[in-house]
Amino acid sequence: VNAGETGEFGIIGLLADLIGREMPAVKDLVLPIGDDAAAYRCRGALQLLTTDTLVQNVHFNLNHTGWRELGHKSLAVNLSDIAAMGGIPQYAVVALSLPPQTEVEDILDLYRGMLSLCREHDVHIAGGNVTAAAEVVITVTLTGYLNDKTPLARSAARPGDRIAITGFTGLAAAGLAMFNDNLKIEGESAALFRRALLQPQPRVKEGQALLRRGVMAAIDISDGLLADLQHVCGASHVGARIRAQDLPLHPFLLKHFPEKALQYALAGGEDYELLFCADAKKVAALKGELQHPVSVIGEIGLFPPGSVEVLDEEGRDLMPAFRGWEHFKSGG
Amino acid sequence: VNAGETGEFGIIGLLADLIGREMPAVKDLVLPIGDDAAAYRCRGALQLLTTDTLVQNVHFNLNHTGWRELGHKSLAVNLSDIAAMGGIPQYAVVALSLPPQTEVEDILDLYRGMLSLCREHDVHIAGGNVTAAAEVVITVTLTGYLNDKTPLARSAARPGDRIAITGFTGLAAAGLAMFNDNLKIEGESAALFRRALLQPQPRVKEGQALLRRGVMAAIDISDGLLADLQHVCGASHVGARIRAQDLPLHPFLLKHFPEKALQYALAGGEDYELLFCADAKKVAALKGELQHPVSVIGEIGLFPPGSVEVLDEEGRDLMPAFRGWEHFKSGG
Repeated sequence: VNAGETGEFGIIGLLADLIGREMPAVKDLVLPIGDDAAAYRCRGALQLLTTDTLVQNVHFNLNHTGWRELGHKSLAVNLSDIAAMGGIPQYAVVALSLPPQTEVEDILDLYRGMLSLCREHDVHIAGGNVTAAAEVVITVTLTGYLNDKTPLARSAARPGDRIAITGFTGLAAAGLAMFNDNLKIEGESAALFRRALLQPQPRVKEGQALLRRGVMAAIDISDGLLADLQHVCGASHVGARIRAQDLPLHPFLLKHFPEKALQYALAGGEDYELLFCADAKKVAALKGELQHPVSVIGEIGLFPPGSVEVLDEEGRDLMPAFRGWEHFKSGG
Repeated sequence: VNAGETGEFGIIGLLADLIGREMPAVKDLVLPIGDDAAAYRCRGALQLLTTDTLVQNVHFNLNHTGWRELGHKSLAVNLSDIAAMGGIPQYAVVALSLPPQTEVEDILDLYRGMLSLCREHDVHIAGGNVTAAAEVVITVTLTGYLNDKTPLARSAARPGDRIAITGFTGLAAAGLAMFNDNLKIEGESAALFRRALLQPQPRVKEGQALLRRGVMAAIDISDGLLADLQHVCGASHVGARIRAQDLPLHPFLLKHFPEKALQYALAGGEDYELLFCADAKKVAALKGELQHPVSVIGEIGLFPPGSVEVLDEEGRDLMPAFRGWEHFKSGG
């Protein structure tokens, strides 16, 4: 059986099983494998640790992505994982694999993109390494911390919770389609789709606000809304029901992709918004507090654990027509 | 100018300059970019953070390396960086990029190799991610800590210090030559060279003993004895003089590579032993304490800062015939 047949999530599951069998449990490791970031105690403070990789021709195409944008994104995807725990990001280490013919000025631009986002979030690059490779591979590992609180976790959704998301989804998928299919989209729409794909804004402040307001369950939407909601339902042993008509579809998405807007919003991936579950009162308070939009799209219930239903206006289930984005199965 | 022309160390220097210019200094970041690991304070404890990458056909060849050995080595190179700080390793996150046709059983074997070394050093795999790629790229990031001490640093060598190394050097280079040149070496010699290249033993306990005995300056020998000694001299603004006849050359290395033994020992790379600098008394105490051999090979002096001399028996300088192993310049 090979990796392509088993898929990313299948492999991660097998590895988590193996580690669980072969390693003794650790008292200080609060949230081990399977959440957005690992969490462990350091003298009372809760430390967070996360790692993510961008691979040339899998996650990005140098014909479409500038090096600054690439630097931005390679850090942003990690900031998004810390955001999904409600954490305060702190130090990054950068492992860079590059073809020897890479221009040094491009490498510096990559770092400039990272450093600009670092300054925005008060993150410091503390180290790293550089090595040769046939293709560009960038792995950023990011630490963060929480002050004496339980982190937001995938496993904390409870029946009765509202399901809410920040911002819009599907815009990165629109950007990918725009580049891959060479679509003639211009002006503000093109800029929005490009930014969503190449310069995602991690919701770090929003994650911290969720934690402050007593939210327990969150995940960042990196694999696609449905796939990530399924991760939450699986980890929390609950089911979810969402309503297609309550999804926030951006007007530019509806304008340029009228037939694919719903698919992109549900299964597009790489949105780096937050999905969270909490009672209606907390969600309402957050809607009032946050500058960034928050939409309630459904609720957690005693549906079969791990199940996700997407209802249309007539109450018909649109699943399983939609599937999340798995790295090995579809590329990207 | 491209990366191949600039070289690994050139690029790292440029990036460190850029980060220094563009980022404000941070009080809690005790040892930033440029040492074996980053060190930062967490409520009084000193946290360590290091990352290292192995790239297929640059750092390993799947025709020679088993997957378990690959798992072992991908963690070992990071443990070696924590060892070079005198630290206690703690949590690892693993970023795995794999061709979709990779067998799942091989991925599990990779993890088995890591987990076996984890158990030996009480390290826990706390997370990671898996993604597709054209070639296998493994980035392990490892945390560690120190209790209320200053870490071993590259920058702490002082004139008058003895230069000492643990174990033997050049054996990994012998292993690489054995595979690449398809040499007919058998029995214990072949096993030694293979183990040195594919299953290096990080000197974690030895690093901790150095710190306990009051040693200040150390580095792990990953780039090659001379290159790493140059790193120490550069960071400490001192010079070094070593004597070729005092280098510990393993009898099997001398037997199978009589003409290349010195070159492999000085410039071979990937030895993952420790080089340290301390006064003669401390070195003698460590020689008595450690099970693993320790050899004095030279001394730090007021030679031109950053310079390294290698004297033969007649006192002639053998430098600059030897050069360290740079990823972009020579491959490996």
